[in-house]
Amino acid sequence: MFEVNGRHYAAPRQPTVVICVDGCEPDYIAQAVAGGHMPWMKRVLAEGTALVGDCVVPSFTNPNNLSIVTGAPPSVHGICGNYLFDVETGTEVMMNDPKWLRAPTILATLADRGASVAVITAKDKLRKLLGHRMKGICFSSEKADQANVAENGIEGVLPLVGMAVPDVYSAELSEFVFAAGVRLLETRRPDVMYLSTTDYVQHKHAPGDPDANRFYAMLDGYLARLDELGAVVALTADHGMNAKTKLDASPNVIFLQDLLDEWLGPERGPAAPVAPASQGEARRSASRARVILPITDPYVVHHGALGSFATIYLPADVVGDVAARLRSLIGIEVVLPRDEAAARFELPADRIGDLVVVSERSVVLGTSRSRHDLSQLELPLRSHGGTSEQRVPIILNRRIAGLDTNRRWRNFDVFDLALNHTQS
Amino acid sequence: MFEVNGRHYAAPRQPTVVICVDGCEPDYIAQAVAGGHMPWMKRVLAEGTALVGDCVVPSFTNPNNLSIVTGAPPSVHGICGNYLFDVETGTEVMMNDPKWLRAPTILATLADRGASVAVITAKDKLRKLLGHRMKGICFSSEKADQANVAENGIEGVLPLVGMAVPDVYSAELSEFVFAAGVRLLETRRPDVMYLSTTDYVQHKHAPGDPDANRFYAMLDGYLARLDELGAVVALTADHGMNAKTKLDASPNVIFLQDLLDEWLGPERGPAAPVAPASQGEARRSASRARVILPITDPYVVHHGALGSFATIYLPADVVGDVAARLRSLIGIEVVLPRDEAAARFELPADRIGDLVVVSERSVVLGTSRSRHDLSQLELPLRSHGGTSEQRVPIILNRRIAGLDTNRRWRNFDVFDLALNHTQS
Repeated sequence: MFEVNGRHYAAPRQPTVVICVDGCEPDYIAQAVAGGHMPWMKRVLAEGTALVGDCVVPSFTNPNNLSIVTGAPPSVHGICGNYLFDVETGTEVMMNDPKWLRAPTILATLADRGASVAVITAKDKLRKLLGHRMKGICFSSEKADQANVAENGIEGVLPLVGMAVPDVYSAELSEFVFAAGVRLLETRRPDVMYLSTTDYVQHKHAPGDPDANRFYAMLDGYLARLDELGAVVALTADHGMNAKTKLDASPNVIFLQDLLDEWLGPERGPAAPVAPASQGEARRSASRARVILPITDPYVVHHGALGSFATIYLPADVVGDVAARLRSLIGIEVVLPRDEAAARFELPADRIGDLVVVSERSVVLGTSRSRHDLSQLELPLRSHGGTSEQRVPIILNRRIAGLDTNRRWRNFDVFDLALNHTQS
Repeated sequence: MFEVNGRHYAAPRQPTVVICVDGCEPDYIAQAVAGGHMPWMKRVLAEGTALVGDCVVPSFTNPNNLSIVTGAPPSVHGICGNYLFDVETGTEVMMNDPKWLRAPTILATLADRGASVAVITAKDKLRKLLGHRMKGICFSSEKADQANVAENGIEGVLPLVGMAVPDVYSAELSEFVFAAGVRLLETRRPDVMYLSTTDYVQHKHAPGDPDANRFYAMLDGYLARLDELGAVVALTADHGMNAKTKLDASPNVIFLQDLLDEWLGPERGPAAPVAPASQGEARRSASRARVILPITDPYVVHHGALGSFATIYLPADVVGDVAARLRSLIGIEVVLPRDEAAARFELPADRIGDLVVVSERSVVLGTSRSRHDLSQLELPLRSHGGTSEQRVPIILNRRIAGLDTNRRWRNFDVFDLALNHTQS
C-alpha cells in the first residue's frame, strides 16, 4: 500500500485502465445501452459494478480530472477551474500550468514506485497537469504527431495507432485516445493507464441522439478490447451535460457582468478591486465587479464559454447586497459567499471570488453580452458547470462485493475502487 | 370583470383558446423549433409572449389541469393527485369524481355569465372534473364517438372532425383534441376553449427525438390554424418530463412500501393506521405504513404508476424517524411532514399523508416491487411528479407589454394572461 493525499492505494497486480469520459451524463449510457449500441457495457452493468456518483462542482473538466488523479477535491489539489483570476498579478489566467497544482497525483506516485504509467488526453491543455512530475508516457491526441521521448516518454504515436491527428473539434479526437490506449496495452502493457476524452459530442448531442449513440458504440468497442486484454477497466466522467436554452432554442444566459455594471455603476477611484493589466483589461477595469467564468478556455466554439458556474470579485461593501439581488433572479440556483462556497463545494478559498454563483439546469452564466461570441454555435447550447451536472457514472468491469450503494460516491473515488477493491 | 377564486378576469372579446400540452418539458419546444419543425411557434416566440413558469407539485396531470382552470393551487381546488387515500372510508380511490373539487372553475363561471365555452380532453378521466357544473361543450377524444347533447353539449363529433376515435395509447388521441378544437372554432366559434392533451408521446420520447418532433410539428400546424382564425392562443403544460432510469436503462425506482415494511415490521394490533376494505386491501393492511402514489390511474402502461412524488400515511410515533431515514437515502430530494408540504407545495393538508416524499430528477418512487407491472414498458422510463418537472412553457400569440419576466409565473396564471392582458 502507498499513500497519496491521505488515502491509501494498493499497487496494481493487473493492468488497470481508468477512463474519464468528458461530459458523460449518465443518460448517454442508458440510452445507448437501451438502443443496443453498447453490448459490452450492458454485460458489465449486470456483472460488474455500476454506480452513479457526484463529480466536483464546478462541474468542469480540469477540476474533475485533477480530482480523479489525486483522489481529492479541489480544496486539496488547487485546480478549481480552467480559468482563474490571479489576485497577485491582477490578471485572468489559464489554470493549465502545473504551478497551480498543490497536490501530488496517484499517477506520479505509482510511477515513482516503479509502476509503468501512461496518460493519454484528447486536448493538450490537460496533459501537463495530469502528467506533472510523472515518469512515463503522457501525450495528447491533439499533438500526437509531436510526441517525443524527452517530452512525452514515447515517439511514433501516429504509426502505432494508425490514425492521423484528428481535428480538435471532432469525435475522433476522443476516439484517438481509446485507440492509442488499446495499442499501448497490446504493445507495452502499462501497469496503469489514464485515458481522458473531450466532450465535443456531448456538447452537441443529447442522450439517445444518433450521433451520441454512435460515439458510445465506438467507446464500447474499445472498452471491450481493453477488457479482453485482461485490464481492470474503470470508467467515470468529469461532469454531466444539459440543454441550456430558452424556448426558442437560443442560449439561456444571465449576463452577470452587465447586471453588476448596471447595479454598481462605474469604478469609484481607489476602491477599484483590480489594477488594469492590458488594454482589454483597462477597458473592463471600469467595472467595480469582475465576473470570472472558470469554464473559459481556448476551445470555446462548442459552448461559447457559457457554463452554469461563475465566481465574482467585488468591493467588500457590496458583497451582501449583490448576493441578495442575485438570489432573487429567476434561473439562479445558489449564491454563496467565498467561505461557504469553499466549504460546500470543497474549493480552495484563495482561488475563488467573493461570491460563487450557480445557475439552474437550463441556465448559463455569462460575463458581458459583448464578450461572448455565440455565432459559431451550430446547435442549441448544451453545457455544464452547475450542480445539475453533478451526477456521473462510475463503472468497473469487476464486481465489488459488499459495496455500500447508499454512500455518496465521488468520481474521485475511482482509483480507490479500481486499485483497492478489484485486484485479484 | 368577474371573480373566480379571488382573482379577477375580463370576459373575452375575441375567441380565446387555452391549451395544456401534457408533459411538455420546455426543451421539447426548443428542440422542435431548432429543428425547423415549428415555424408558427418560432414566429410567436419572437413576436408574442414566451415565459417558462412553474407548475404545481405534484407535477401530475389532474392537479395541474385543475389549477389552470381554477387559477388556483390545489390548496384551493382540492385536487392534489389522480389518486387519493380517503381517510374516512379507509380506501384508495381515484380523484376524478367532481365531488373532490372544492372550487369553481373559470370555465363554468364564464359559461354562467353567458360565454360559449368548449372543453376537449384527450382522456375521458379529466372530462368530468374540467366540465364540472359547466354549461357548454365538453367531451374527450377517447369517447368522442359517445358524445351526445345531454351529456356533452354536442353530438356528431366524429363526422365534424373527420377522424376515427384514436387508440387511448397514441399520439393521435392528442391530435384529435386539436383537430376538434379547430373544427369547433371554424363552425361554432366558442368564446373560450380549453384543450388538454395526453403525454403518451412525452413518456416515450425525449426532446429532439424524431417522434417528439413529429408530434410538435403536428401541434404547430393546428396552432397556426387557430391563430389564423383570429383566436388568442395561450399554451402551457401540466408538467415537464425526465428520463428516470439507471445506467442499464431499467427504471430507477425506490420502492417505498417495501422499505417501510422492512423498517417498521408488521402491524401491531390496534395501532394499524387503516381498516381493510377489500381482499387486496386486507393483504396490504398488514403494513404499518401506507404509501400512496398520486400518479396512479387506469392508464399506467407508459409509466407503470411510477413518478417522483409519493405521500405516506404512518402511525404518529414513527413519522419523525421515518422522515429522517428517507432523507438519508441517495435519490430522495425532499421529505416533508404534512403541514410543511401543504405550505410549500400549496396542497390541501387533509388530503395528503403524514409525509410527502419527492425524488430526484432521475429517480421514481414505487410502493412494493410486486405491485408494479413494468413488463409493458417498451422504452426507458420517462416520468414526472417531482420538482425537477416543475418548469413548463407559457406561450401566447400576443405580445404583453411590460410583463415582469423575473416574476415566478405559474401555469395557472395562463387564463389571467390570456383574458386580462391580450384582449384588444
